[in-house]
Parts: sequence; structure tokens; C-alpha cells
Amino acid sequence: MKIAVVGTGLIGQAWAIVFARGGHEVRMWDGHPDAITKAIPLIAEQLDDLKQAGLIDEPAATLLARIKGYQTLEEALAGVEYVQESLPELVDVKKEIFARMDKIVGPDTVLASSTSSIPASAFTEVLPGRARCVIAHPVNPPCLVPVVEICGAPWTDAKTVQKTWDVQQSTGQKPVKINKELEGFILNRLQGALLREAFRLVEQGYVDAEGLDVTVREGLGLRWSFMGPFETIDLNAPGGIADYAKRYGPMYESISKEQTSTEPWSDKVIGQLEAERRQYLSADKLLERRTWRDRRLMGLAAHKKAAEKDIGK
Amino acid sequence: MKIAVVGTGLIGQAWAIVFARGGHEVRMWDGHPDAITKAIPLIAEQLDDLKQAGLIDEPAATLLARIKGYQTLEEALAGVEYVQESLPELVDVKKEIFARMDKIVGPDTVLASSTSSIPASAFTEVLPGRARCVIAHPVNPPCLVPVVEICGAPWTDAKTVQKTWDVQQSTGQKPVKINKELEGFILNRLQGALLREAFRLVEQGYVDAEGLDVTVREGLGLRWSFMGPFETIDLNAPGGIADYAKRYGPMYESISKEQTSTEPWSDKVIGQLEAERRQYLSADKLLERRTWRDRRLMGLAAHKKAAEKDIGK
Repeated sequence: MKIAVVGTGLIGQAWAIVFARGGHEVRMWDGHPDAITKAIPLIAEQLDDLKQAGLIDEPAATLLARIKGYQTLEEALAGVEYVQESLPELVDVKKEIFARMDKIVGPDTVLASSTSSIPASAFTEVLPGRARCVIAHPVNPPCLVPVVEICGAPWTDAKTVQKTWDVQQSTGQKPVKINKELEGFILNRLQGALLREAFRLVEQGYVDAEGLDVTVREGLGLRWSFMGPFETIDLNAPGGIADYAKRYGPMYESISKEQTSTEPWSDKVIGQLEAERRQYLSADKLLERRTWRDRRLMGLAAHKKAAEKDIGK
Repeated sequence: MKIAVVGTGLIGQAWAIVFARGGHEVRMWDGHPDAITKAIPLIAEQLDDLKQAGLIDEPAATLLARIKGYQTLEEALAGVEYVQESLPELVDVKKEIFARMDKIVGPDTVLASSTSSIPASAFTEVLPGRARCVIAHPVNPPCLVPVVEICGAPWTDAKTVQKTWDVQQSTGQKPVKINKELEGFILNRLQGALLREAFRLVEQGYVDAEGLDVTVREGLGLRWSFMGPFETIDLNAPGGIADYAKRYGPMYESISKEQTSTEPWSDKVIGQLEAERRQYLSADKLLERRTWRDRRLMGLAAHKKAAEKDIGK
């Protein structure tokens, strides 16, 4: 399949890798004419890293050959069945690019946006082709973190959602269908619920930031990295998830009564967290630590691939 | 150090492995006289599995030789500096065993309970040695999931907490100090906050259980398995955690207004989740799937050990 990647920043580059890895022909375009010239060598570097980590089966050069840049949007979109847009997170930017794309491509081409914060209804309502517009929200970088949240506007056609799901699935990504528009989609709503309690526990002096992080990275987060929260509790009571709800529901109900705050995170706790984090990692080391994070993510992806093969999904 | 493990069920067996792996002499006791006879061969099996997975440096037999069962509580507790109690989760059971142990051991011996649901103040108040009683709450099995939540009663001595921390740290576990008693400690409060939103999203039809699990196991849970939620957001904005709070705080504040329910999980959503989970895993396969889970946990532990060495902590 021919796929266009619109926007060649970090997310766009990772999308190009994802689609090329899935065997597709990738046509890239960016509003800044020199952006594409810069993007291709960066993609080549990342392909080499992924190859070395065992996360690409074919030679890196084979994948790179599937990725090409174009100078005009019209050229990039010629003959494509699917477009993944990853321009800046501004509703006016999305409105403009979707209006332009909607005029260029045929009616069966899906127009998907990577936006994490703007619902599809905010920038597609007036378009003649609004039924083929949808959100396909990745986690950065999508070549290492496979989930893709698919969420349409009220007028998005079910076929558009299904085609987006099929395209993502065909590349090895893990698509999730969201049935109705909602702020933050699923991932950030779950993250927000946990963060709110985390901020509260630190603010009220129960635990420090490092203690809380240890609780998750050496405990709670381990099972979630290969099962998810529902399978985790399904296996955590002899009779499955309904049995779990019976045994532990009252405890969680009781706790929930202290988890109802809707105040903004206070300046006090933000300052406290910033100060504690900077003890572990000075501001000038943030960039270096992000490289570490991506190397750990790459190692984890390779581990999961092997574990699914050896032990099972 | 001599350490007693009181209660030789699944948790007690895993504790024996943890302490033996840390080089300690482990003295086991259980209320049921034949429980210890059953436990030792099960421990031997697990040690072989851990050795094979690269999670034990010494020969399995060396560790096994450090673990011995005793017929009376007095014998098991002779000369120990630390006791880890893992009997059933009933307050009367805890009251009785702590009263007995408090009479047997000297004043410097720490008496720690594995309880996940009963605060130390509920079963230690009247004891002469209540200052050396504390909770050291593991995740099952502690030989694969290293976090240990340490939480005292209001009368627990700071030295008791520190000694418990040191003992756990010395074995390679990851202790977390909780500064004040609270229901659910840290781990289950975080889990509860996320589960509440998860139940709500399924009940209101936004996503199904499998879609939600995919969102976590292929996305949100990956970083949390090696960083925790605070380091994750510290690296997710150019300027660190305070910058993140500035950028995304308003979105999380807005979402939080829909996350205030304190109702019990409804029978409707529990039924729906049970029905969906049983499509993926029939009730007669739960046991087998738990073995799969523990093998995946073991693989993940081995991966993390290697990644921390190769890439860094």
C-alpha cells in the first residue's frame, strides 16, 4: 500500500519507519522544504539501531528504499490509500492541512491525525470528506511503543475506523478502537487518574517521588507491561475478575472516597517534585536521559518480542 | 543474618528464596506441622527455575542449604534479628502470632508482616514490643517482583523502619518507605485510581476490556516498567516535570472532573468484564495462565537485570 506521512519531525520519522517495516511505500512531505532533507538521514540512523536490536527482519537499506520525500503535498499524496498527519498540535494547523488534503485525495483515502489532544470534530466538521477523517494517536516513538488509539468524530464512517485499524494492524502496531470521542482518549485518562493520586500522596507526605517511582517500576508496572490492568486482576483472584471485584472492590471503594480532588496540581507539590527530580537528574542531563530511555524501550521491545515467541502472548 | 519466615505458603516460600539469595540463614515455621515438609521441595523447584533464568548467582543447592524448617515457633525464632510473617489475612491471626512472637524474641528483633490490607496499628497496639513491629508488604511473588512497601504504626520506631529497609535492600529487594499509615499503602492506591477510570471507560462504552489492556500493555505500561510515573513525565517535556505540569496540567485537571465517582464498581460492568475476559481465557485455564504470567515475570526480571547492566539504571 502507498502511505503518506505528512510532517517529518520525530513522530513523522518514526511513522515512516513503522509503515516501511510493514512493507508499505512511504511518501513524506513537510511544510518546511528542508525538513525532509534532514529527516531521511535521521531515519537511516534509527533503522540501523533497530536492526541491531533485532526489531527489523529485513535489511535496513530495504526499508530505507521504501521511504521517499516529496516537495509538494500533491506529489506526496498521489495514489496513497492512507495518510498519517503529524504536524504541530495547533487546531488551526490541523484545520488547514486537513482542508488541503481533503481536496487532493480520492474519497476512499483515510486521513488520520497523530494528535494527542485535539478531537477530530474540532478540525474536520466542515470538510466534504469528513467521514474519512480520524485520529490515530501513537505514543512517541511509535516504532518502539506499538499502541495506536483510533478515535473518530461523530461523523467518521465506521469503514474509516476499520481501515485505519487494518493498516495499523498490518504493520505490527497494536490498534485500539475508541467508540466515542473523549478528552485525553484512553491512555492519558488512565495516566491522569494514576498521576492525580501520585501527586496527592507526595503532597500529603506519605511517600517521596523516588519511593513512588520505585513502587511502580519495581512492582505495579511490571505486570502491566505485558498484561494490562484487567488481565492482571483477572489472574489475581482464584475465580477471575468477578471474584477479584468481590474480594477487593470494597477496599477500592473505600480508597476512592479520598481520590475525588479536581483541584489543579498545586505549585507547592510541583515545586517539590521538580526539586526532588533534579537531585536525581540535573536539568542539563535530561536530553542524555531521554536517549537512555529510548535505548531501554528498544531493549524492552526486543525482550517482549522474544518472550512472546518463547513463552507465549 | 538469621531471619525467620513465619508461614510457609506461596508468599513465605518466595520470601525464603529472597532471604537465602541475599546470603541470610532462613528459619521457617508454619502453624500446620506438615506445611513445612511440603514447602521445602516446592522451594527447591523454584530455585532451579530461577537459576535457569539467570536470577540466582550461586548454585541453587547453596541457597537451599540456607533454608531450614522448625517444628516450634520458639526454635524458628531462636537468635533471629528479623522475622517476616506471612500467615492468612485475618486480624485475629495477626494479633495472635504477633503476641506470641513479641514474647519470644529480644527487643532488637524486627517483627514484619506481609499483610496487604491490615495496618500495623490494628494488631500491635497492646504489645510491649510494638515499637519493633512494622509492615513489609511484598508483591507476589517477591522473588520476581522486588518492591517492598514498608509502613509502620504511629508507634513504630524509626529504627525499626530503617532496619527493615536495610534488610530488604541487602537482599536486592526494592524497599519503599511510607511515612504514615494509610489504607492500601501506595501500590494499591495507585492501582485503584487507574482501575476506577478503567471500569468507568468500559461501563460507559468508550472501549472494551481488551482495548484497554492493549493501551496499557503496548503503551502506558512500558515506560512504567523501568521508570515509574514521575520520571516518565520528567522526560516527557523539554524542561522536566515542572514544564510538563505547565503544559499538560490543564488537560489532566479537566479530565479529573469526570473521575470523581466513589460508587462501588457496578454489577453490570463487573458482569460485562467477566464475560469478556472469559472469551479470551476460559475459567479452567486460569491456573495455566498464572504459570504463563510467572514465566513472563521471570523473563522480564532477567531482561531488566541485563538491561540495567548493559544500558544503565
